[in-house]
Amino acid sequence: MPRGKLYLIPNVLAENTAEEVISPQVKEVISKTKVFLVENLRTTRRYISSLKLGVKIEELHMEVLDKNSSPESINRLMQPLFKGADIGVVSEAGCPGIADPGALAVEYAHKKGIQVVPLSGPSSMFMALMASGFSGQSFAFHGYLPIDKRERVNKLKSLELESSKQSRSQIFMETPFRNNQLFKDVLSSLSPGTKLCIAKNITGSDELIQTKTVGEWKQNPIDLHKVPTVFIIQSF
Amino acid sequence: MPRGKLYLIPNVLAENTAEEVISPQVKEVISKTKVFLVENLRTTRRYISSLKLGVKIEELHMEVLDKNSSPESINRLMQPLFKGADIGVVSEAGCPGIADPGALAVEYAHKKGIQVVPLSGPSSMFMALMASGFSGQSFAFHGYLPIDKRERVNKLKSLELESSKQSRSQIFMETPFRNNQLFKDVLSSLSPGTKLCIAKNITGSDELIQTKTVGEWKQNPIDLHKVPTVFIIQSF
Repeated sequence: MPRGKLYLIPNVLAENTAEEVISPQVKEVISKTKVFLVENLRTTRRYISSLKLGVKIEELHMEVLDKNSSPESINRLMQPLFKGADIGVVSEAGCPGIADPGALAVEYAHKKGIQVVPLSGPSSMFMALMASGFSGQSFAFHGYLPIDKRERVNKLKSLELESSKQSRSQIFMETPFRNNQLFKDVLSSLSPGTKLCIAKNITGSDELIQTKTVGEWKQNPIDLHKVPTVFIIQSF
Repeated sequence: MPRGKLYLIPNVLAENTAEEVISPQVKEVISKTKVFLVENLRTTRRYISSLKLGVKIEELHMEVLDKNSSPESINRLMQPLFKGADIGVVSEAGCPGIADPGALAVEYAHKKGIQVVPLSGPSSMFMALMASGFSGQSFAFHGYLPIDKRERVNKLKSLELESSKQSRSQIFMETPFRNNQLFKDVLSSLSPGTKLCIAKNITGSDELIQTKTVGEWKQNPIDLHKVPTVFIIQSF
């Protein structure tokens, strides 16, 4: 029996944007797929319903694949592939597989020779970089920075140093309710001439993406509390 | 007069895929935009025609923004924004602004307080990373590696070392006609246990994305000649 494929299916970043940002291919794959591994059951059901594909949500087989999923549980979750069923992986927001539990499923698929098919869609990290104006010839993504203040400030300084040494843009994020604290630390610990791109609520109605120097941001800081935000710095 | 916006418009990666991979939002922005800065006039005209939006290509104002464009020419190219016209930036393939001349236009826009709007779409680098199975919590993109063989091998070894030290996936590319040479250098200079993801012709009908160890690839190398390919390594 031919094996199923593992589809990496993008989710929206902001509410009520599916009709605009989701491609026909993503819709087609979702409408043909019966088995899903999802980071969040509720938001995935809402997302699939919002696409108005005529899919009966209650007939889909959905299991949770999140940061608490053990590598051991992956074997069980992936069994439908060997019976010929395709599996769709869906994150809570954006594209699965990057800084995200979906990577465990992908790793397993490669080991077993299962075909992995990434579908294009919105990614806050990637779209922030596109819109930052930084060269993008060389960049690094660092995920979430340390929570401890001293460690975080040290990390920020080391990212700034690496940026100027390697001409490398540095991308990082924070849990939205800690954004303002991170923003404050960036402004107080980095050089005034370092460039900082703030990309806030990408694809949302109040999307804001601006690149200024740290010195300029200090004069006009903005509120990022509880709003999904990507930070990118470039030092020269 | 309100200023125009700078839209970053994704292009397709593989021929005849626009109908599947391009989102309704991208189509809508293209159908409303009259001024474009494009990396390649011919392919952009073909792309816009393929979307069948009823746009009269000959009535669009298109100028070239490519790797030969000087920072000085940007000022002239961006003037329509100040007269209230939106500008769309279109790369030869994938998303503009990353490892791409579009970044010059974005940098200028931020300096002048022009709104920059990134639209989501296919990116070979990003989709390769999604489908690699590497964690994605930390990764770096290095663009094109040096052409000189000795320099390239040294660079590959330093990327492998950085990958294991920093737990960082390393992404790089090559001009397609030099892919096989790069592939050979990767296989001969890196440790057999290092993981290598090869992502070939993403979104194309012969798309192939596989992650294996360098040792496994050595036993079954594949032909990458003249096919757009993304390389990602992870060392432990």
